[in-house]
Amino acid sequence: MSKRLEETVKAIKPLDKVMMEEVRKYQDTLTKPTGSLGRLEEISIQVAGITGKKTPDFGKKAVVVMAGDHGVVAEGVSAFPQVVTQQMVYNFANGGAAINVLARQAGAEVKVVDIGVAGDVEVPGVWVRKVKYGTNNFCQGPAMSKEEAIQALEVGIDVAEELIEDGFSILATGEMGIGNTTASSAIVSLLTGCTVEEAVGPGTGVDNEGIKRKINAIKRGIEVNKPDVNDALDVLMKVGGLEIAGITGLILGAAANRVPVVIDGFISTAAALVAKGLAPESVNYMIGSHCSAEPAHRRSLEILGIKPVLDLKMRLGEGTGAVLTFYLIESAVRIVKEMATFESAGVATKE
Amino acid sequence: MSKRLEETVKAIKPLDKVMMEEVRKYQDTLTKPTGSLGRLEEISIQVAGITGKKTPDFGKKAVVVMAGDHGVVAEGVSAFPQVVTQQMVYNFANGGAAINVLARQAGAEVKVVDIGVAGDVEVPGVWVRKVKYGTNNFCQGPAMSKEEAIQALEVGIDVAEELIEDGFSILATGEMGIGNTTASSAIVSLLTGCTVEEAVGPGTGVDNEGIKRKINAIKRGIEVNKPDVNDALDVLMKVGGLEIAGITGLILGAAANRVPVVIDGFISTAAALVAKGLAPESVNYMIGSHCSAEPAHRRSLEILGIKPVLDLKMRLGEGTGAVLTFYLIESAVRIVKEMATFESAGVATKE
Repeated sequence: MSKRLEETVKAIKPLDKVMMEEVRKYQDTLTKPTGSLGRLEEISIQVAGITGKKTPDFGKKAVVVMAGDHGVVAEGVSAFPQVVTQQMVYNFANGGAAINVLARQAGAEVKVVDIGVAGDVEVPGVWVRKVKYGTNNFCQGPAMSKEEAIQALEVGIDVAEELIEDGFSILATGEMGIGNTTASSAIVSLLTGCTVEEAVGPGTGVDNEGIKRKINAIKRGIEVNKPDVNDALDVLMKVGGLEIAGITGLILGAAANRVPVVIDGFISTAAALVAKGLAPESVNYMIGSHCSAEPAHRRSLEILGIKPVLDLKMRLGEGTGAVLTFYLIESAVRIVKEMATFESAGVATKE
Repeated sequence: MSKRLEETVKAIKPLDKVMMEEVRKYQDTLTKPTGSLGRLEEISIQVAGITGKKTPDFGKKAVVVMAGDHGVVAEGVSAFPQVVTQQMVYNFANGGAAINVLARQAGAEVKVVDIGVAGDVEVPGVWVRKVKYGTNNFCQGPAMSKEEAIQALEVGIDVAEELIEDGFSILATGEMGIGNTTASSAIVSLLTGCTVEEAVGPGTGVDNEGIKRKINAIKRGIEVNKPDVNDALDVLMKVGGLEIAGITGLILGAAANRVPVVIDGFISTAAALVAKGLAPESVNYMIGSHCSAEPAHRRSLEILGIKPVLDLKMRLGEGTGAVLTFYLIESAVRIVKEMATFESAGVATKE
């Protein structure tokens, strides 16, 4: 690890247990059966623990879309050509992608980061922090060097800290990268202990032959690179991706600064597994969004201990599920802020 | 059936298939893998079919909270005293309940209807359309007469039509009524064919003894009243509730006027089953919200063919799950309205 990475990991502290207990108790005084708002109550307690505030105000919200390419696309693992990563970055910059629409709906800003797109991106509004023009094909050697992986993690930390410095108080993860469900499935298989077959799904929509190619590519990648499953950084550099590393860094940077970070779909969850490997305490700063159609997603969420709140059968990525969750988090806090208590409303409690 | 009820049922027409097909095809031109927005895409197609508009504008939104009491509380089926129904109506009127907070977050109005509260409600803002001071204890005879059930259904239709007349273009169902999970479980058991044991859950939080009392009460109610499972109106009047009938009417009134209606939790779903029995076509106008902690809820949703979009483990009612869903419906329509197409954005399609 680099000094910057080490310091960030060290800065991630336990949640504020006192504030959590205060909100937990307060929830039980509100005019509703105990626990009847389910996950909304849990989220209100978690964000109180993260921020140290009973009802944090999430004025400025951002979803960070990390974009990077994958050498493993040479193995025919995606339904879309690699150039789509770059084309979608332009689409993000022009406000035409799903994440732009849902971010506008959420009152959130979209921050697009070119951390590893295979081509040059020159369009206003995109943060160019390119570590490399796409990863290497992990079937032939490590996806990136250790230095590159650390650099990509640091980009994520930097982005988190710049946004927080600029007043953003809640972040969501997002990504774009043709081929990145393959890299994510490799990570998930190694870090959760499931088989490669269990870790692989249709991604953006490959057929059964495509799924077989994904499985074969991952198996070869693991054989060639022999990642150490007890070393998340080793897994990340050998079979991961630049945008995945960027998301991991973003999560660590948010956690180190006591800012909640909403985890999007399967790729973001793979990055979250790496974050857990590097800094186990970071999981407490993660808020779940949805469980995608990728079969290994649920297992990964369970291992992280984060719970999905949306059941939309989405499988798009970009941060779309995470940005939809902002609304639910704001609702959860608003309940604490505005609901009447049994006492104030003169309502009888349980007999 | 009354003439008004018959006319309303007759006015419920199939969805606009042409408009649905148009939106379905358009979704596939947008810059995302086909079907990758899952339920959001389905919802956009459904609301187009309901309204006949490609991107309907839901400017004014309302959640209707029907409040009524239940004679069956005499059997010790609830954790809360009956007076809480009335007290909560005052809480709604004062803006202090969970539904008020979540409606403010959604930019929706809360319409509270006293359709059968056991006491007199005199507070500005509550629509008093009282059919009866609570139902009779169905362990001793029908919960209400056929005339009362029809009157309550008509209240629901009236409320829907008054709101639509007033410019509301999407409605959500909600309710308050101590004891109403017992009435709902009775309806669910009869209309879905599951056993009483399968249909009963903890409601607002009764213990195992309370659950036994609920099961026993329902079994006696069925034995005493012998509801005809092929006649939803008979089931409703014998073991149902005034607020449940009101919600059924609201659903029918919305469907007859081609307005989408979001179905809240277990009680609203029981009312939706009655609506399906009276007018099978009405299910196409229903949009699912969440699946509550009540064990028979999922089965009921499956029979209705409506899918939950939230996974929040809520069990509060009032319309809380439905009103949270407005945001997702608006997001679904906004995607159609604002996303770029592959062609307009210059993004390559699937290889």
